[in-house]
Amino acid sequence: MNVGHRPLVTDENAALFTDLYELTMLQAYWRERRTHTAVFSLFVRRLPECRNFLLACGLDTVLDYLEKLRFTAESREFLRSTGSFDNAFIDWLAAFRFTGSVFAVPEGTPVFAEEPILEIVAPLPEAQLVETFLLNQIQLQTVLASKAARVVRAAAGRTVIDFGLRRMHGTDAGLKAARAFHIAGVDATSNVLANRVFGIPVSGTMAHAYIQSHDDELDAFREFARSWPDTVLLVDTYDTLDGVRNVVRLAAELGNAFRVRGIRLDSGDLGDLAKQARRILDDAGLDGVRIFASSGLDEESIRALLADDAPIDGFGVGTRMGVSEDAPALDIVYKLAEYGGRGRLKLSAGKRVLPGLKQVFRVEDHGRAVRDVIARADERGPGRPLLHEVMKDGRRLDAAPVALDDMRRHAADELALLPDHIRDIEPADPPWPVSISESLEAAWRALARQAGE
Amino acid sequence: MNVGHRPLVTDENAALFTDLYELTMLQAYWRERRTHTAVFSLFVRRLPECRNFLLACGLDTVLDYLEKLRFTAESREFLRSTGSFDNAFIDWLAAFRFTGSVFAVPEGTPVFAEEPILEIVAPLPEAQLVETFLLNQIQLQTVLASKAARVVRAAAGRTVIDFGLRRMHGTDAGLKAARAFHIAGVDATSNVLANRVFGIPVSGTMAHAYIQSHDDELDAFREFARSWPDTVLLVDTYDTLDGVRNVVRLAAELGNAFRVRGIRLDSGDLGDLAKQARRILDDAGLDGVRIFASSGLDEESIRALLADDAPIDGFGVGTRMGVSEDAPALDIVYKLAEYGGRGRLKLSAGKRVLPGLKQVFRVEDHGRAVRDVIARADERGPGRPLLHEVMKDGRRLDAAPVALDDMRRHAADELALLPDHIRDIEPADPPWPVSISESLEAAWRALARQAGE
Repeated sequence: MNVGHRPLVTDENAALFTDLYELTMLQAYWRERRTHTAVFSLFVRRLPECRNFLLACGLDTVLDYLEKLRFTAESREFLRSTGSFDNAFIDWLAAFRFTGSVFAVPEGTPVFAEEPILEIVAPLPEAQLVETFLLNQIQLQTVLASKAARVVRAAAGRTVIDFGLRRMHGTDAGLKAARAFHIAGVDATSNVLANRVFGIPVSGTMAHAYIQSHDDELDAFREFARSWPDTVLLVDTYDTLDGVRNVVRLAAELGNAFRVRGIRLDSGDLGDLAKQARRILDDAGLDGVRIFASSGLDEESIRALLADDAPIDGFGVGTRMGVSEDAPALDIVYKLAEYGGRGRLKLSAGKRVLPGLKQVFRVEDHGRAVRDVIARADERGPGRPLLHEVMKDGRRLDAAPVALDDMRRHAADELALLPDHIRDIEPADPPWPVSISESLEAAWRALARQAGE
Repeated sequence: MNVGHRPLVTDENAALFTDLYELTMLQAYWRERRTHTAVFSLFVRRLPECRNFLLACGLDTVLDYLEKLRFTAESREFLRSTGSFDNAFIDWLAAFRFTGSVFAVPEGTPVFAEEPILEIVAPLPEAQLVETFLLNQIQLQTVLASKAARVVRAAAGRTVIDFGLRRMHGTDAGLKAARAFHIAGVDATSNVLANRVFGIPVSGTMAHAYIQSHDDELDAFREFARSWPDTVLLVDTYDTLDGVRNVVRLAAELGNAFRVRGIRLDSGDLGDLAKQARRILDDAGLDGVRIFASSGLDEESIRALLADDAPIDGFGVGTRMGVSEDAPALDIVYKLAEYGGRGRLKLSAGKRVLPGLKQVFRVEDHGRAVRDVIARADERGPGRPLLHEVMKDGRRLDAAPVALDDMRRHAADELALLPDHIRDIEPADPPWPVSISESLEAAWRALARQAGE
């Protein structure tokens, strides 16, 4: 286990990436032999106000974790060294594996409040322990995919590039974000490692420091185009329109050798500057040079720029998408819904849990989705079931993981089925209709009645 | 390199954890032999509206990264496979190391807008490449430490425990957060791995699932207290006050063997429930049983609870601190301030960069800090310098990294020097005064004049 300055969560120590209470409960379950089958549902209780839907993401990470989960000798030694746990319990952890089933919606599926994103069916201790990691990863990746889907929507077909790595929350978020964004429709990322690991298209050209390190902006452009002829030149280091004029000068100098693909605006009134820059470029016959914009962009500002006819061909979107600034977290939970064959209830104020294994049916009409129904898993539902068994006896059911491009296509297809007012970035009125099936409602009422007796 | 489902950023591939433009610029610098000494400043341009100060954090991670930075054969092979880079450039990367100096404020130091958190002095390509990782880590850890300092302030001496792991942004954030929170004064974490890796006190008892898995709440309490006699019992699964009464029943059953340390409220009107619970416990002679609260807490709600005299002894704080919900990102940048011995300017609208190597002086009067001055590094300043050389020729100057407890003490000491209205959670009026020294101002004006000519 790496205990240096750059500690890592690896296959070797991931079992310790958990809240202490999972382990204290585990020891109690072990002592009580409370190891019957449990059903846990992972879902979002309420959507953030600024989200009409969520785009489920993170399943692949979770399945990999479940397959590899074990307490290594070193992890067990650590637990022993704390003096808090029973030695026989720690010995029992040596053989601990995840042996259960996972039912989940595919990554890239739009989901709504109270709808299970995944359900776990496993002996109680196994299903319990994994709570922290599952929530951590599903929330992170779902938060980011959901935000990106909005940005892509606002960009209305123009290029969107993820520039957020420097202001994301750490290295894990940086990698997972590039993947989540790509599933949600973002075209490329600045993140080189994400290109290496996931094969996501990578993009990037120059920063202000490059320009500043030269005594003269035109000189910097000239040198950079020598190294990277089909680059995008950053024009706002000193004065944006002067920068654009320097690009025109460079084009005149290079003649037929001029292959610069575009310019990037990174400060000021982007809409106004884009219009002026477009005019300068067009007047010089450089109508093939595209205009990219960055600097504090999000779906709202992109929408406003395009509504104002800003001639911007692509957007570099950083911080606000990278941390999902308007909704960095979800009210996402992982709740016991059944134990030992009996539905389980929780009545804490405002925190209802629907009992038992469930299914979500998406009802379509003339090729458009019209509503969802949350039902018992064994019901014959009114529409298309969204949850599928993806793991059984602790093993993935698909030999090969789903390809990233297929997830991306799935997301686009599923989003296309939703009505415009739900896919759009303004708050949906009315919101997406989700109902509870009569049978599930009855099961919940029966349990609540029982508890009240 | 791990390219599986759980990709990791490791010492082996960290050089690729970067924006593509760092590498394209690097190749241009290499081709132009633009390798003179550069000075970069890492700072926050503006504080978020809801922050009176930031608590600098993340330096240790950064120094470790800089010491280990290299392009492994595998990383170079990958870059070659992209077909984008010059082969001779990739060969040159084999010997690439960080050989520069780092000047930084110690972790746990309060800092303000425009004040360098760290400055890098190194050959331009080295100083350039590290931008993405440095920003990613300093921002993450500074964002989280700054939020936690507010929560600790609001809790006014009561216990604060980090419950946020499940809703933080990924595994790296989960580990780094526990550390940043501890430096900022948080007492303990639920994160077992953070206890393993950093030695941070760990805390946690039970979740609703444990209660629900039993047919009866009192039964669940009884069983859990058998496994964990000095536990904290979660009382709100069905009805909070009934839960408290079940704790009283358990105390009656166990008599002298009753060692339960506390109860936890996790839903509803926490202040009102705490008062009623306190009364029930006290009436039963259980005045030693402490009351803990959790559920959507942050500095504002903690302040409100305590202002209303809620008898709460400790707070479990999760999501809102875990993602710094009200300010999940900073306007944090890393800017070229000098190259080849000349200060460098950037004039982009609203994005001033102060030239050259700098120092921040904190001026004190009668044992209280009263203002800061940002000056040139070679000035004799009016107060105590905050930046220190921590790395030289690519090597840390301190043989042993600073102990976490020392950073925690440093943070407490430095915060204690600030006026109450700055440390407090309400927006500071007036804000902390930061001025630019005459000499630095003159250097900036001279450069701006030159650029205007």
